[in-house]
Amino acid sequence: MKATLSLLAIASALWSQLCLAQSTEPANDWKPAPSNQAGRQYPQVNSEGRVKFRIVAPKAQSVGVSFRDSSPFTRGEDGAWIGYTRPLDEGFHYYTLNIDGAEVPDPNSHYFYGSSRWGSAVEVPARDADFYALKNVPHGQLREIHYWSKSGNTNRHAFIYTPPGYDSSSRKRYPVLYLQHGAGEDETGWGSQGHAGLILDNLIAEGKAQPFIIAMEYGGNPFAGGPRPTNTPPVAAGSTNRPIPGPGGRGFNFSAFEKALVEDFIPYVDANFRTVAKPTHRAMAGLSMGGMQTRSIALTHLDTFSHIGVFSGGSIAVTNITDLAAFKKKVKLVFISYGSKELGGDRPNRGGDPKAQTAALKDAGVNAVFYESPSTAHEWQSWRRSLHEFAPLLFKN
Amino acid sequence: MKATLSLLAIASALWSQLCLAQSTEPANDWKPAPSNQAGRQYPQVNSEGRVKFRIVAPKAQSVGVSFRDSSPFTRGEDGAWIGYTRPLDEGFHYYTLNIDGAEVPDPNSHYFYGSSRWGSAVEVPARDADFYALKNVPHGQLREIHYWSKSGNTNRHAFIYTPPGYDSSSRKRYPVLYLQHGAGEDETGWGSQGHAGLILDNLIAEGKAQPFIIAMEYGGNPFAGGPRPTNTPPVAAGSTNRPIPGPGGRGFNFSAFEKALVEDFIPYVDANFRTVAKPTHRAMAGLSMGGMQTRSIALTHLDTFSHIGVFSGGSIAVTNITDLAAFKKKVKLVFISYGSKELGGDRPNRGGDPKAQTAALKDAGVNAVFYESPSTAHEWQSWRRSLHEFAPLLFKN
Repeated sequence: MKATLSLLAIASALWSQLCLAQSTEPANDWKPAPSNQAGRQYPQVNSEGRVKFRIVAPKAQSVGVSFRDSSPFTRGEDGAWIGYTRPLDEGFHYYTLNIDGAEVPDPNSHYFYGSSRWGSAVEVPARDADFYALKNVPHGQLREIHYWSKSGNTNRHAFIYTPPGYDSSSRKRYPVLYLQHGAGEDETGWGSQGHAGLILDNLIAEGKAQPFIIAMEYGGNPFAGGPRPTNTPPVAAGSTNRPIPGPGGRGFNFSAFEKALVEDFIPYVDANFRTVAKPTHRAMAGLSMGGMQTRSIALTHLDTFSHIGVFSGGSIAVTNITDLAAFKKKVKLVFISYGSKELGGDRPNRGGDPKAQTAALKDAGVNAVFYESPSTAHEWQSWRRSLHEFAPLLFKN
Repeated sequence: MKATLSLLAIASALWSQLCLAQSTEPANDWKPAPSNQAGRQYPQVNSEGRVKFRIVAPKAQSVGVSFRDSSPFTRGEDGAWIGYTRPLDEGFHYYTLNIDGAEVPDPNSHYFYGSSRWGSAVEVPARDADFYALKNVPHGQLREIHYWSKSGNTNRHAFIYTPPGYDSSSRKRYPVLYLQHGAGEDETGWGSQGHAGLILDNLIAEGKAQPFIIAMEYGGNPFAGGPRPTNTPPVAAGSTNRPIPGPGGRGFNFSAFEKALVEDFIPYVDANFRTVAKPTHRAMAGLSMGGMQTRSIALTHLDTFSHIGVFSGGSIAVTNITDLAAFKKKVKLVFISYGSKELGGDRPNRGGDPKAQTAALKDAGVNAVFYESPSTAHEWQSWRRSLHEFAPLLFKN
């Protein structure tokens, strides 16, 4: 009996230690992140979605990362600092290193434009990453263009995705999706971290979406300072000069972008690409601020757009619609989406509950669809999935 | 007399101090560099070509930059470190910051691929920057493509510049320049820091060059580690996966790239773009390692290429040519260039003096041209100028 109790006590103690180890030690199955620069072994991601960093900084007093609740960074004898994050959501996350008070990019990661700067981000591989994987299927092209904006009296810069097969026919014409980034991002976002081209390539290869053109312009940045001087060369493929101050200064005023989009960009795209230049064959969508712009611009230009996508950018209430009969005639699709972690509980949603509002739209006879991205927040995995759900519904007319 | 001497002594002392000030104090006409991220005030460049950096690092013990002979960085009361370089050549320079031993990108600059990493670079505005300025002229497109490589059994990634007007005709066919980056760089280089598209746009607008296609592939990196896993999505527009180990490990072995170029890339470009698929309408050129590849590949494929450009990558001696009569018949142009600071004095040039060798080629009846970029070294301003001089000579047949 005594021996049995002792054994139980030992087993219990061992179990406690095991549980403690499980709760404090990250799973030791680290792999280099897909967002690393070629050949770089760090950052690494484990099966819990934690990200581990290694920064050589032999004379630093402190090293840290912008992810909240990260472990303290500790310095090894090789002068390299190691630290890791809490488990992160699947998908793509911007971050910054802090080395003795200096906020700098991680020298090991690729760089992306977001949070109003070019800087680091890490990809935590998602279970559904296959829908934007690079496969041996026919690929479209991502085209960097410069064009003259009469409304702004300056050069503007944009990206156009043309679907597979675009160049092999000289007659076929395509619908166009105008697709906008979020605040603090720019026209590079959807083609780079958004994987818009690969999402469409794969959907088209599977016969799940019509081939269409995606046009991606710069929608302004309410958080940024003044514009860059005009007529300077862009300094990098994928970088931009800043010809239009966007939503004039801080705050959301989309009138300059609305003018550039409607008066310059759409006519340019229609004149220079083989589009079907009709409202029935034009969609507008965007994420976050781009979704707000879509609601603001598309809803007031129903003679321009017929398909509307709002990703994490609010929703459309029946009461927003002045002439429901005309709206139903002109609007072929309203698509509203959010990451599940943006919804419910005590989180306020701009202008009402988007799921309920979309259901009400549907009840009122509008072709309205609500999509909830599982277990993601206000980040790119929600928006990649939103595009993946939205694209097959487009241009079915 | 005594008063005169005193005055002279005072004047002399003042003059000395003035000269000292002139020799040690940089000219105070700093302006933000065109390579800065939008809205960033630093780095700044002055009329002497010095670059001044400002890095907020309140707890750092030391801050420095990779440019040799830079001033020590000093910390202000605001926690920002300031330092500046010696006068640099006009043009584009890669650099890295050092913060307490950590080599990191400057958070203020745009990022470029060079020196085998994505990182910082600064543009010292050149007197002749107008030839790659963004102007209100018709623009070509820089197209990012993915295609399947049979020789490598993998996806490959490249950029294609199509000239202005390419899309407005469905019949016109174009010659192609295959244009290669240097060692430690990749297929993004010419379209980004090289400004190849803007150089061509401007030359074509001025009637100085025939419109042609530029095809830019990844030629491998002798300094890099292993390849990235294949079939992973590219993580950024302008980033690449690394399907082919390039010149296998350290050292220059171009056979894998030669195979990918000749067996996969050229057939892909001819099948998917409106090219004139004849050797008379194909050129190959490259900078540094890309020039070595051009000599190695083009010279052994004279049934593929007829125009050859070697920028800072050696030259071609008459003795390199086995059948001069056949060479003269097939090769329409040999263009060799260097930055002036790479030439002369006691600097060794790979395989002989390039200027003398090119003159000898010309004497032997080859259409050979030598170009020397004034006051530049082994850097991008030499290569931008080389392309600007080379392009008007192409496809005159």
